[in-house]
Amino acid sequence: MLFVGRNGTGRSGDKLLTPPRVIQETNKTIATILRGDVKILKKLAAYVVSSGGKRIRPLFIYYLGKANNLEGKELIRLGALLEIVHAASLLHDDVIDRADERRGQPTGAKLFGNKQVVLGGDHLLSSGLQYLNTLGNPHYMAVFTDAIKALSEAELVQMQHHFDLKTDLKTHGRIVDGKTAVLFRAAGALVAILHQNGGDFYRSATAALGESFGRYFQHRDDYLDYFDAQRLRKKGLQDFANGIVTRPLAFLLKAVSRPEYAGLKAEWSHAQKSGQVRAEGEILRLMQKYRIEEKCRELLRSDENRILAGLAALPEKEPREIISREFQKILAVRAA
Amino acid sequence: MLFVGRNGTGRSGDKLLTPPRVIQETNKTIATILRGDVKILKKLAAYVVSSGGKRIRPLFIYYLGKANNLEGKELIRLGALLEIVHAASLLHDDVIDRADERRGQPTGAKLFGNKQVVLGGDHLLSSGLQYLNTLGNPHYMAVFTDAIKALSEAELVQMQHHFDLKTDLKTHGRIVDGKTAVLFRAAGALVAILHQNGGDFYRSATAALGESFGRYFQHRDDYLDYFDAQRLRKKGLQDFANGIVTRPLAFLLKAVSRPEYAGLKAEWSHAQKSGQVRAEGEILRLMQKYRIEEKCRELLRSDENRILAGLAALPEKEPREIISREFQKILAVRAA
Repeated sequence: MLFVGRNGTGRSGDKLLTPPRVIQETNKTIATILRGDVKILKKLAAYVVSSGGKRIRPLFIYYLGKANNLEGKELIRLGALLEIVHAASLLHDDVIDRADERRGQPTGAKLFGNKQVVLGGDHLLSSGLQYLNTLGNPHYMAVFTDAIKALSEAELVQMQHHFDLKTDLKTHGRIVDGKTAVLFRAAGALVAILHQNGGDFYRSATAALGESFGRYFQHRDDYLDYFDAQRLRKKGLQDFANGIVTRPLAFLLKAVSRPEYAGLKAEWSHAQKSGQVRAEGEILRLMQKYRIEEKCRELLRSDENRILAGLAALPEKEPREIISREFQKILAVRAA
Repeated sequence: MLFVGRNGTGRSGDKLLTPPRVIQETNKTIATILRGDVKILKKLAAYVVSSGGKRIRPLFIYYLGKANNLEGKELIRLGALLEIVHAASLLHDDVIDRADERRGQPTGAKLFGNKQVVLGGDHLLSSGLQYLNTLGNPHYMAVFTDAIKALSEAELVQMQHHFDLKTDLKTHGRIVDGKTAVLFRAAGALVAILHQNGGDFYRSATAALGESFGRYFQHRDDYLDYFDAQRLRKKGLQDFANGIVTRPLAFLLKAVSRPEYAGLKAEWSHAQKSGQVRAEGEILRLMQKYRIEEKCRELLRSDENRILAGLAALPEKEPREIISREFQKILAVRAA
């Protein structure tokens, strides 16, 4: 029973916001949740609000909820909390990877130092959970604590398989689910909770849609790391350089001959030592030889169609169209 | 109304456990909460269980609760959760300070590496909160999220005042409250929640007692860093070396003459550069000259008397006596 209004009272009635307004309201809510009098925390809050990113998670939960006729204000609150958890996870990730940049932006670690970034991440999380608790729904709390646990677990699994060429697709799938899919699945579960007042929210259509979307999002990123021409020119094969086996590489390793496998293994060791990919051209030639791009693209297309079908089944037309339009931009596989 | 049994049903009736049994049951509960299939997490859980420490927080909440006639099992659960939050905070602290050891034990960071320690801390926290949520009391959640937030905030305030000789007693008090007192205050608040089914639990007698105890505990540590002969032989004036202004130093700075202040300032700068205290003897001579030890000890004694009076007012005799006896060991100021 996913398509009745909250508490069975029918339509929520509040106005549908445009995406820029959703982002604006989300930022306001984030700022409220993170307000405090410690200087460094003020800076950190401003950083989280201003660095912004695309706010995909808040947009996703807002329009998914509105497409199911839910109250906008609660969706904004939950979206802000998803974004805070996401930001905290990125901050702790930054410390760990000692990454110098994330998508061209200076990272938190570089701006604030490792020390402040760990504590800042803790502060974001606890401020978020404190606010969440005031919303008074223990099901919400279950979804968020499950998600935070899954995020740290997935990072640890990924670490355990760092530069492990034998990482199988099952393990990779677990990492994808924990690192990326989990917050989109959480968004879907939260929408289901709002509808059903609890129930088996992880088995809802919206949680399934969220999970598919999150998985797709990560697999598409992994695909682009090997096959997006524009990205390759700047910095290709980052996952190979960083010792992470993703779908393209896992498929390739299964397909290649023994001598080719040995060659890839040597490149892998070189990347581990140097942090650089030496034989980019050769790796891409093998990808082409075994038609890995086509294989990956086919899988992405079928995922994409399932997601679009899921979106099309949502009851409310206007938010459904916005969500399809907004996410079509992301869903479109850019490479030919 | 702090002295009636849970839900007004009178005495809880379950048997009073000895301190070693409380620790044993706490460790079992911690192991249950932290169980999982990720290899590194198993090691981390084993480390948290086995490194143990004195389990002061679980003992404190157990006997405080029993002295108020509460159910033992729930107290063990809450004590295990306090210990998990404490362990997570130490882990994140380890990363930050790059400390090589904590009280003679190898630190988590040294055993597991920074990377795993940040994520491991996150995992401890989220596992704890996930379990806490299943206990189904939103007041518990409020107390824990408040405490976690206060812990990270206090660490950040401390960082902000790192090697700041002008750190005043108010700021130092805030750090003490956030870093140490907060989890003892939480223990007292949780006991009050169990009694009152909510209410203004932070204003309860047990929360006040917990806070006094936690503050005392930290001030006593700060005192011993300057005035405990045994400790001084091993590694004295750690707080000075680490650029933290505690009560003894704050009192001294207020008391000294201008040239003496300049001398201390020079030593402070030297410690900042070298991480070493050069003029330990001279600093201690000034402490003696201005009778700082006596002043600190007087304050500790008056705190101690207040705590003992608070303990004496608890209704149940047997747990009250155990808590007094156990904590008398800690409460006793060792230095002459």
